[in-house]
Formats: sequence, C-alpha cells, structure tokens
Amino acid sequence: MTNFTAPSIPTIDNPVLQQQLQQILDNKTKPLGALGRLESLALQIGMIQGTTSPQIKQPQIRVFAADHGLTQHGTSAYPSAVTAQMVLNFLQGGAAINVLARQHNIELKVVDAGVATDFTSHPQLLDYKMRHGSRDALTEAAMTQEECLLALRHGMTVAEQLEGNLLIAGEMGIGNTSAASLLLARLGDIPIADCIGRGTGLDDAGLQHKTAILSQVLSRHSEATSPLAALGALGGLEIAMMAGAFIQSASERRILLIDGFIASVALLVAERLAPGVRQFAIFAHHSVEPGHAHLLNLLEAEPLLDWQMRLGEGSGAALTYPLLQSACAILNEMASFSDAGVSEASAKESIEAEVKP
Amino acid sequence: MTNFTAPSIPTIDNPVLQQQLQQILDNKTKPLGALGRLESLALQIGMIQGTTSPQIKQPQIRVFAADHGLTQHGTSAYPSAVTAQMVLNFLQGGAAINVLARQHNIELKVVDAGVATDFTSHPQLLDYKMRHGSRDALTEAAMTQEECLLALRHGMTVAEQLEGNLLIAGEMGIGNTSAASLLLARLGDIPIADCIGRGTGLDDAGLQHKTAILSQVLSRHSEATSPLAALGALGGLEIAMMAGAFIQSASERRILLIDGFIASVALLVAERLAPGVRQFAIFAHHSVEPGHAHLLNLLEAEPLLDWQMRLGEGSGAALTYPLLQSACAILNEMASFSDAGVSEASAKESIEAEVKP
Repeated sequence: MTNFTAPSIPTIDNPVLQQQLQQILDNKTKPLGALGRLESLALQIGMIQGTTSPQIKQPQIRVFAADHGLTQHGTSAYPSAVTAQMVLNFLQGGAAINVLARQHNIELKVVDAGVATDFTSHPQLLDYKMRHGSRDALTEAAMTQEECLLALRHGMTVAEQLEGNLLIAGEMGIGNTSAASLLLARLGDIPIADCIGRGTGLDDAGLQHKTAILSQVLSRHSEATSPLAALGALGGLEIAMMAGAFIQSASERRILLIDGFIASVALLVAERLAPGVRQFAIFAHHSVEPGHAHLLNLLEAEPLLDWQMRLGEGSGAALTYPLLQSACAILNEMASFSDAGVSEASAKESIEAEVKP
Repeated sequence: MTNFTAPSIPTIDNPVLQQQLQQILDNKTKPLGALGRLESLALQIGMIQGTTSPQIKQPQIRVFAADHGLTQHGTSAYPSAVTAQMVLNFLQGGAAINVLARQHNIELKVVDAGVATDFTSHPQLLDYKMRHGSRDALTEAAMTQEECLLALRHGMTVAEQLEGNLLIAGEMGIGNTSAASLLLARLGDIPIADCIGRGTGLDDAGLQHKTAILSQVLSRHSEATSPLAALGALGGLEIAMMAGAFIQSASERRILLIDGFIASVALLVAERLAPGVRQFAIFAHHSVEPGHAHLLNLLEAEPLLDWQMRLGEGSGAALTYPLLQSACAILNEMASFSDAGVSEASAKESIEAEVKP
C-alpha cells in the first residue's frame, strides 16, 4: 500500500435543481433575496442533498485527538499532557464541545487518533491509536507513508460508520496548530510566517521560537510537495484522520460543517487528495488564527460567523448548527405568495385597484 | 398629557459582578478568551441579568404592524395592502418569523399598532390600533403629540405583559423603512441620502423619488428636533410602540434582542427618550439597508451576524436566538480547570515534571 485511492466524489452541480430551489425561495412570502445568507445556505444544503426539501438527520460530532512529536521542541504553550486531560474532559462532558452538542442534541464521540497517553475503554471513545503521538517532524517524517495511509483509511472508516447526514469533525491535540501551519505553508505555497499564530496562547518569544522551528521542519522536508507526501511529512495523525473522514463523507454526500483552522487544513488536504470534497463543506466561522484567512481564501470560503474564536474541538461548527436548521426550515415551511394570498411587487397595480375601489 | 415620562432604567454597571463573570469564563477548560465573541456575549447577558448564572426564560416575539400615510406618495415597492396580508400570514404561521419562532419555541404575537385594514379578533393578535395608519408626514405630523405618547404608552403596556426575560420586537409595515430613515437622519444628524435604501425592492427611479419625498418631509418638520417631536412628526405608529416596549423592557432588565434597521431605529428613539435602554440590547445582525451601518455606529453596536438580510419581522433576531442560549450554556455548564483536572498553561513546568518523572 503506497498510494491513496480516493472513493468517487459526486458532483453537486445540477442546474435544474438549482433553478427549482431558487424559484421556491423566490416565491416565499418575502422580498426577493431578503433573507440573504440564509437563502444561499438553504440553496447549498439543497444542492448537497440533491433535493428541494433538505433535512438534517442525526448530526454527529467526532473529535479527533492526537499528540505531536514536534512539541518536544517547545512550540506550544500547553504541555502535551493536556491532550489526554482534555480527552477525559470530553468523556466527562465538561468541555465547550460537550455543552454545545448537548444544546443541539448532536451525538459526540472522541476518536483516539494517537494520543500519547493510554485510556481505559469508554463507550464514547473510538480507539484508532496506532502510535503514541506523531514522530518528530524536525528529524523525520511525522508519519511514515504507511502510517499516513492507515490514518486516512481509519478516518474513512469512522465516516463510514456515521448514521447521520452531517459531520462536524473537531480536534484536540497540543501542537496541532503547528502541523496545520506547516501543511498550509506547503500546500498553499504561503510563507510560514503568514501561517503561524499563537496557537492556544504563545507569547512573543514563543512565537519567534515556533517560527524558527517550523521553518527548519519545512527545509527538512523540502521534497514533500505532493498532498500525500506533505501530509505524511508534516503530519498530524488527527489531521490525516479528519481528511479521510471528509473524503468518505463527501463520497456519501454528507454535509461537512467545518470548524476553524485545523479542520479547514484537513479539508484542504482532503480536497487535494480527492477533488470535489469542498463542495460539501459549509464553513462555520472565521478563526482568529492568522493562517485561517489564507485558508478561507484558498478554499473560496465565506464563513457564517466571525466571532474571534480559536478553541477547536468543533466548537465553532457546533455553535452554528441551528443556523443550518433554520435554512432548511425556511425552505420547507415558509408559505409562498400564492399559499398566503400575499401580493408580489409586480402585482402592485392590480392589488391597488382591488383595495381602493 | 404633553410630555413623556420614562420609567427608571437601571444600570447594568457592576464591576464586582463583571470581575466574577470574567473569572468564571477564564477558569473554563479552554485557553484564555478562546471562545471569543461567545464569551463577551455570556458576560453581557450575565451583566444584564445581574447574575453569574444567567438563564433565558420564556423568550417572546412581538411583531408590531402598522401602515404609513406617506406611502400614498409612492415611496414603497409594495402596496400598503401587503401590511394586512402579511399580518394574516403571521397569524396563519407561514412567514419567516413564524418558522424561526417554531424552531426555537419562542412565543409569537402580532400587535396591530395601526394597520389600515381591520381584522377579526385572533388569539395571537393584540389590538392597539388607534388609527388606520399614520398621517401623511408630507403634510402634517405622522402622529399628533397625543397619538405619539399613546403609542409609546401602548408599547410599554405590551412589554409589561410579557412573562419572559427576552424580547424580540419585529415589525411589518409597508413604508416603515421611510419612517426609520427619516428618524435616523434627524436624530443622528445624517444626510437623508445616506439613510435611504431600496426598502423591500425599489428600482433606481423609485429610489430617487423616495429621496426627494423624504427630503421634503424633513424640511416640512425642520423644527421637530427633540426625540419626542421627531418621533411624532416622522412617525411610524409601530416604531413608537417598539420604542415604548424597549423602554419598559429595559426598566425590567429584559434582554432586547434587536433585529435590523427598523428595530435599531426604535432602539435609538428609546435610548434618546430614556438613556440607558441600550445597555440591554444585543444586536443580532447587520442589515443590508444602507442606513443600518450609521445606526450601528451611533449605538456603538457590533452585531452577531452579517448575513445581508433585510426582511424585518424580527427574523434576523430570531435566527440568532440559539447563539444566546449557547452563551448562557457555556457559562453555566462548562467545567473549570480544577473541575476537570486539566492543566493551565501557567502550570506548565509543574505538570511536565509530573508526567515525565
């Protein structure tokens, strides 16, 4: 197994359906286009599901957790141990993503994609650990090609087992903003300094150190230019699994509700490995992580919210979930002009004649 | 009755509570500030309710509907008859605001603040009609001072009868963007051309005509400069009732979830009549109606969404309601670092010592 074979990704392009959806929206009891983004969101969801009456069923969150060998060089504000502590917090229901999942009744499971600590089994924990953290990308590839392909395959398996038609892929992994920045720099051909942020709270000296280390990593792996080679070299076991989950989900026409910086990088990787995946993506929010603006640009994405968030876990995506439900509800439940007996502007004269005898 | 006596508006300013709320947020299991706007929203709701564990109870929507005498000069794309038709649509449950209210289980009632058409009684219709539409502001004040004071008083009565602690005031009234533009121009001292938009769909010629008419209205009422005089002269029975409802609600520390252009103008009027009301306002969205940017600036408001909406009815506010619920849930339900046994960054060395013996 030395290469990645992506499943077939359907196209959502369907001019007839698009016209039908637009016509339904235009006939709702409101001025043309007056619901703005809510209308374009309804249209996109209809196109993804291939129907004029889209429904979100059994939405699911999978939080992919892993550690990163590179953190031994002091690139993160928090110690690696926090990855495992936060996994336990997820399993106990105390993290932000738990609160939002409960609010919206979204099923939440945590995926051990390679956390350095071992866990006892738990009904909400899916064990895909193949290593205790990725390798140190400063001295070798973060994943061997076999490990990288297996992580992608595992991500696809996680997605195959989803019952619903909407996936939120969250993540937890001290050091994963570094891996994401590296992947963005390489795949987006963007200077590393523009891709780096303070992660979960680096100070100025920490940021400078991180930039130096990440530059060395990119030099070390200058030949890893293909999407698969870059993913393996620059890594992130959880990022590879997320990319796999996005690819499989897109092949099943599932909505991908994309969280922030890390999830967007995983989507970029997925799109490069399996062109077409991006069609299924709805971008939840614009992260304050500086590289996110570049990513959104590369992916031609306009996020729903700009709320200066930078937590990860899928939290930004879960926050916006009810907005997607609203979009479906508008399409399915609002009365049309003819249903409601409301005049359209074009009928102005006849109506005025009618009401002023 | 010739002057308006506002009820006392409490201050939400409370440095001790603010510090407590900030400390609770800072101790949640996330990097400092990583939930961005969701944290500041939680803090604001806590301050409004004067508690570290805010709860939204029995949210209510009141859609204030009225007609406008000025529309006889052709300032709107839709005929006045649409106001009544949309009221019936609200009562039948087919409008956008109905769909969103059902989604979020928000009680919805329609207030007849002066629709030109008479309605048979309906359990969801509150009858405060004192006129069949406002007067023609081109030739006289839209409301006499007595009518204006009565509309404000009626709005306060509507608010007094609310059971919940959050109000969404929506509106429906063909011609009310004109009234709102006039009030913004006068109270904000902004050129009328900057306050005018296409309403629910005027073409270029229509927009030019609207600008000419509204300029004449402002000249006609050049002496109406006080908030009360401006409200009476430039009008909108529904805008006056909304302002009254905001004032009374603020006096009861109710959250005001502010919709778009018209609702923001009503809030500006309320704030001018009863300083302090604005403290209770959360701005849902940035409308595409051009005057809204000026209003948000005047009110120092940063809306939650920028979705190019311009429907009114309270639709933008209802859309964002679950985001407020999320803010409360984060504050009330997320684990703290000590609850969850998660390391804080500041504890980095001790934790590393602990996990690497």
